[in-house]
Amino acid sequence: MLTQFNHYLPVNLIFGAGKTEELGKETAKYGRKAMIVTGQNSTKRTGLLDRAKALLEKEGLEVVIFDKAEPNPLASTAMKGAAVAKEEGCDVIVGLGGGSIMDCSKAVAFAACNEGNIFDYIYGIKKGEKALPLILVPTTCGTGSEGNCFAVLTEDETKDKKSLRDNAVIAKASIIDPELMTTMPASVLASVGFDALCHCMEAYLSKICDPITEITALEGIRLIGNNLLTIYEEKKQGMTEPSKMNMDAWSAVSLASTYGGMVIHQAGVTAPHGLEHPASGMRNITHGRGLAALTPVIYRRTIDAAPEKFAVISKCLGGTNENDCVSVIEHLLDCLDLRTTLSREGVLAEDVEWMTKNAFKVSAASIQNHPKVFTEEEVRRIYLEAL
Amino acid sequence: MLTQFNHYLPVNLIFGAGKTEELGKETAKYGRKAMIVTGQNSTKRTGLLDRAKALLEKEGLEVVIFDKAEPNPLASTAMKGAAVAKEEGCDVIVGLGGGSIMDCSKAVAFAACNEGNIFDYIYGIKKGEKALPLILVPTTCGTGSEGNCFAVLTEDETKDKKSLRDNAVIAKASIIDPELMTTMPASVLASVGFDALCHCMEAYLSKICDPITEITALEGIRLIGNNLLTIYEEKKQGMTEPSKMNMDAWSAVSLASTYGGMVIHQAGVTAPHGLEHPASGMRNITHGRGLAALTPVIYRRTIDAAPEKFAVISKCLGGTNENDCVSVIEHLLDCLDLRTTLSREGVLAEDVEWMTKNAFKVSAASIQNHPKVFTEEEVRRIYLEAL
Repeated sequence: MLTQFNHYLPVNLIFGAGKTEELGKETAKYGRKAMIVTGQNSTKRTGLLDRAKALLEKEGLEVVIFDKAEPNPLASTAMKGAAVAKEEGCDVIVGLGGGSIMDCSKAVAFAACNEGNIFDYIYGIKKGEKALPLILVPTTCGTGSEGNCFAVLTEDETKDKKSLRDNAVIAKASIIDPELMTTMPASVLASVGFDALCHCMEAYLSKICDPITEITALEGIRLIGNNLLTIYEEKKQGMTEPSKMNMDAWSAVSLASTYGGMVIHQAGVTAPHGLEHPASGMRNITHGRGLAALTPVIYRRTIDAAPEKFAVISKCLGGTNENDCVSVIEHLLDCLDLRTTLSREGVLAEDVEWMTKNAFKVSAASIQNHPKVFTEEEVRRIYLEAL
Repeated sequence: MLTQFNHYLPVNLIFGAGKTEELGKETAKYGRKAMIVTGQNSTKRTGLLDRAKALLEKEGLEVVIFDKAEPNPLASTAMKGAAVAKEEGCDVIVGLGGGSIMDCSKAVAFAACNEGNIFDYIYGIKKGEKALPLILVPTTCGTGSEGNCFAVLTEDETKDKKSLRDNAVIAKASIIDPELMTTMPASVLASVGFDALCHCMEAYLSKICDPITEITALEGIRLIGNNLLTIYEEKKQGMTEPSKMNMDAWSAVSLASTYGGMVIHQAGVTAPHGLEHPASGMRNITHGRGLAALTPVIYRRTIDAAPEKFAVISKCLGGTNENDCVSVIEHLLDCLDLRTTLSREGVLAEDVEWMTKNAFKVSAASIQNHPKVFTEEEVRRIYLEAL
């Protein structure tokens, strides 16, 4: 047990099927004019955007909609959103969507209160102090952004993909409604669910995993191990009606996803996330699929450095000891139709050199946090093996 | 798993042996003049009060000392402290001591910002909004007050013992330094350690135990089960030098105690705490000893209502199933020299009638939270059996 640590994570979780109904009441605590940050498609298709707007208006809020958040959101998009929020005099930001959208909404809330280039804050050149109050409503169970202070952004020019980290962008309330998750396509569920699992595994493996983080991360791994395939099968069978689905399993994975966000807030991520960011920053690939390509390769080279921890992870996922941990994870990836390689996702052999250099630029802390600290040459070999 | 819940607990834990050194720096964030709330004896005897004063002064803070906090603190004491804090223009309150002292310091911080009788706020007649910022430094590992928003006070006239509950009195920082705990006498360690165990067991048994609270409470039970007797033996052998003690075990129990405070913040307490408060409100008995008298009697009458949970508790404490849970707890009490009865602690047979009525006045919520809701007649019988 780590016997020296600081732990501060003031999340306010409102959890449960149907809790979306509380959006208006929660948001109204923070002002009279709200900006909903969302994407261009899914919240429109499912009707959630209209529902959210109506819930806010019912509480007397004026609503502005910014629907430009894209997958792997660009810094410039967040700056545009912040400009609209300032112009319109919005008091509060509502992030409605998956991880990219929540991260974009955090960056909008931050940039609306802090002048200049947001990457100056990410690289610590400037120090931010506040942000507009933020309400988050996740529609995917993967990123856990509703449970932490991170907003992963991609810088337009350099393609650097890196997290803004500021307690000012911890949501005032996160409404986690497992019913909303049920609208995801099966393939999205697979990749975000695996991302959530990676958060929990990486935080547990982190050198700075404190005892509170440890029990939360392990419970997250267990909940995903016990429930993700159940709900993935439901989606593959084409089920769409929450009342006919196993909502206990959907709740368990949704909660584990929030746990994943919470635990990386405290313990950070390690090599798989650290090495994935250059790939998705460069080629705009799906984050969970990038992790699926990299995690087995990286873990196989790490087990010797932390065999007890890999044994614990394996057992949480139904395995027996450190030696079957990677094959247990690979089996899960098979069942999720998620076994892949970086090249299948669009990464080219010629990208490896840039990604290797970029990893040490944007992910130095994550590489240090890993139980085994890889050299540049080892990182290059990992990328080549995962290609 | 409870699938609908709210979870909000913005504690800021600074944990580790030696962390007391950070007191000055943490306190200086909140103003220039600090009031230390402490008791009349132990922090003077151990030199901690002088050390704390020096640490604050080193950071340029002016220091006022209020050393009137007593065991089972009276509302009138808190009001006196608040009057001094206002008179002296203190910006921040530092609570230095055990549970009674931390609770008193919370009440001082609250009463300094909210006019009138503090029991009007406890009974919900008035609503408070803010408090002076508060730094807590526990010297006992029992109450967990550093991990929640409760301040248990006794009303001078009525002897009602009841919690102020207000998020404004969650500490801005809680410095949990296991070295400070090592100065407790063995008998105090036994009773506060058992209190901490009760917090974790009662929160786990509570009807409103959410999943985050559940894993935290169970870990707290395990940590106490695995470590409390080790450190109790060290104290019984007269050890006083932290460098010669098992600091991993002291850290584990200290952390479990904070967990205990955190879990009752979310899930509340149940019947043992609910029925103990009338006893210690009436006769000023030691809280942990009152719990030791009541818990086995109450649990024996509860097992049928939640056999799975009692089985889990038993296993965390080294037992095998629900049927040996009470005997495992009684064995722990024996090893802690803590087997007792209410009459041995000073409660009289004639008090039973008042305590029974008072339990339903001050502890209605805790009685409702218990897996088995006892009637007035059942509560009377519990008191008589525990007498």
